[in-house]
Amino acid sequence: MAVSTPARLTSVHSFHSTSRAATLIASRRNQQVFFAALAATGAVGLSYSILSTDKMTMAHCDAVSDDKKRKSQGPITDRDPMRLRMEAFIKDLQNRIVTEIQQLDGRGEFVRTAWERKEGGEGITCVLSDGKVFEKAGVGISIVYGQLPKAAVEQMRHDRGKNIEADGPVPFFAAGISLVMHPHNPNAPTVHMNYRYFEIENPDGSPKLSWFGGGADLTPSYLFEEDAVHFHQTLKDGCDKFDPSYYKDFKQWCDKYFFIKHRGEARGIGGIFFDDLGDKPEETFAFIKEMGNRFLTSYVPIMEKRKSMRYTDDMKEWQQLRRGRYVEFNLVQDRGTKFGLSTPGARIEAILMTLPLTARWEYMHEPALKSREAELMDVLKTPKDWIPLV
Amino acid sequence: MAVSTPARLTSVHSFHSTSRAATLIASRRNQQVFFAALAATGAVGLSYSILSTDKMTMAHCDAVSDDKKRKSQGPITDRDPMRLRMEAFIKDLQNRIVTEIQQLDGRGEFVRTAWERKEGGEGITCVLSDGKVFEKAGVGISIVYGQLPKAAVEQMRHDRGKNIEADGPVPFFAAGISLVMHPHNPNAPTVHMNYRYFEIENPDGSPKLSWFGGGADLTPSYLFEEDAVHFHQTLKDGCDKFDPSYYKDFKQWCDKYFFIKHRGEARGIGGIFFDDLGDKPEETFAFIKEMGNRFLTSYVPIMEKRKSMRYTDDMKEWQQLRRGRYVEFNLVQDRGTKFGLSTPGARIEAILMTLPLTARWEYMHEPALKSREAELMDVLKTPKDWIPLV
Repeated sequence: MAVSTPARLTSVHSFHSTSRAATLIASRRNQQVFFAALAATGAVGLSYSILSTDKMTMAHCDAVSDDKKRKSQGPITDRDPMRLRMEAFIKDLQNRIVTEIQQLDGRGEFVRTAWERKEGGEGITCVLSDGKVFEKAGVGISIVYGQLPKAAVEQMRHDRGKNIEADGPVPFFAAGISLVMHPHNPNAPTVHMNYRYFEIENPDGSPKLSWFGGGADLTPSYLFEEDAVHFHQTLKDGCDKFDPSYYKDFKQWCDKYFFIKHRGEARGIGGIFFDDLGDKPEETFAFIKEMGNRFLTSYVPIMEKRKSMRYTDDMKEWQQLRRGRYVEFNLVQDRGTKFGLSTPGARIEAILMTLPLTARWEYMHEPALKSREAELMDVLKTPKDWIPLV
Repeated sequence: MAVSTPARLTSVHSFHSTSRAATLIASRRNQQVFFAALAATGAVGLSYSILSTDKMTMAHCDAVSDDKKRKSQGPITDRDPMRLRMEAFIKDLQNRIVTEIQQLDGRGEFVRTAWERKEGGEGITCVLSDGKVFEKAGVGISIVYGQLPKAAVEQMRHDRGKNIEADGPVPFFAAGISLVMHPHNPNAPTVHMNYRYFEIENPDGSPKLSWFGGGADLTPSYLFEEDAVHFHQTLKDGCDKFDPSYYKDFKQWCDKYFFIKHRGEARGIGGIFFDDLGDKPEETFAFIKEMGNRFLTSYVPIMEKRKSMRYTDDMKEWQQLRRGRYVEFNLVQDRGTKFGLSTPGARIEAILMTLPLTARWEYMHEPALKSREAELMDVLKTPKDWIPLV
């Protein structure tokens, strides 16, 4: 079932339509869906897209309509522009992840919200709330065609050394997938993943400059070393196919990015994080696909082991305190979230789908000495190499 | 009972010592307590203090030791410097509030943490957790003698038009009281109050420039118009004793300051907020005392009516969603909190005592049409004048 609205929301439906889902949709029929801030955590590259102006140049219109035409003609192949290949990949990946995670949950259903942007672009946000295994799980994709205002170009050049010349707005394209999953069971870890592609275009719509970014990281409430090793090894095996230095570099970048400065502790046990990979688009796209495709392998086996483990109320409370830290990182520090929230008209619900369902703050809470909680804190205070870096 | 540590923490004890409190303390014996960021929400003026350098000038040392000596000689009177009078007032106010709120709660006990700053100054943080009436209630005071670095002076001059000349660091003094109380019952509102005094000193320790700031505001999950009227009327009656324009100006300032921009809604139903009141120190101090003393009258009668009202699970869930918004405001927008968190060595637990015990985020939650939840949202989307402004 799909509900159209006069606004930009194109459809909201559950993956397996049920009466509960239908009710949910009816009550939200009039919900306005704004131009989405490309979903948040870590999606720094993408967040520039929010700055786009509404004015369209001819080149931009051509790119949008050429791409639209191409998509209507049949399956995207390796000979198509990277924009279309990345879009096809993340849409397919989102479907695969949503299907398998819904199956893993066994009760919850992803509610799917599709939106369109009149200047070009679209997005699909899938959120499962209060499932059997997951408290909240969100998987979003965004595809945006826009004009980067001169000020944003200047900032990109300044902050990140991007070699962009601009007398006025510059056409760009951005596509990304972003997910966060928070399980009920305190033995089971929260996971985050994000992969994105950004392109600055020439007047003829061909890419002038393009780069990829992203990563994946794990946030357990209780440490199972074998889970940390499995997660990191799965990522390292993917990295090693492409460059022997990738895993080491991106693992350390991840530890640095997800460190909660005011707490002096990492958000979780890490993973990989990278940005501005632009030298070899073909090879990097193959790397992005490899890593995106590894998400289910990196996470599902851990969930299978942890989702039904017994736990106490105290363990649940500790998990809730850790969720509080997750909220602190995302709201105080994450560049994508901060940028999205400060942007008028951003799609707030998509940005904040990364927050847990519930969180807790206790004054001066401190785990008992040598407890399992203290064991976790040790590895958060001093990020650890779970597997040899090289 | 009091526990001394080799660090700067001077004592941690419960107001009425019990075995539960004692256990709590024992397990926290080794907790390091850092130089406190002056407790957070709205305490913009005070947060400059965190920038203070460790180097002490002669003038600064003199001020600290003169004040210390004076305090040891007997009760502070109206002939003493404003620094000492403000300190005496907020200490007394903190004690009165803590005593009455503990009585109102009937079960919970405030845990009191005292700390000292070697460069001069001290603080007392009192937090009641998981009481009968309150989920969490925190009342903190801070007294800081420091040196404002040149860059901070420049920023003060630039941002707030402060007429301070500086070739180097400038001695300053800051004292403030800050409180946040989150009740269990969704019919009962959260409250926040903060009053502060800031002083820039001449080389001889006399004030060169000084000002007061502060305010109080109410955050209900369910709207009881009579509560909003009572709270605002109590504040207005205090304001009217001093200046007929105060209530109107400070009520509107409050609505503006506590507006959650990314949500397009106010944090609560307002109150008053002001800063940089420096023209007439004697009169303004009398005003600050009047308003501080009105806290219990403005809040306790509301709590007496609401603390035992019946409520449903749905109401509790709605309250938790509103708590999520409180967290969003404090972490994303509140200037004092942001400043404190970005300052190395700040006392994070004191800054974040303002966060609720628990909070919740649901994807795309929307209250039913014409529900009591929707009624609250209406007044948050468009802040209302609860009583005539003049």
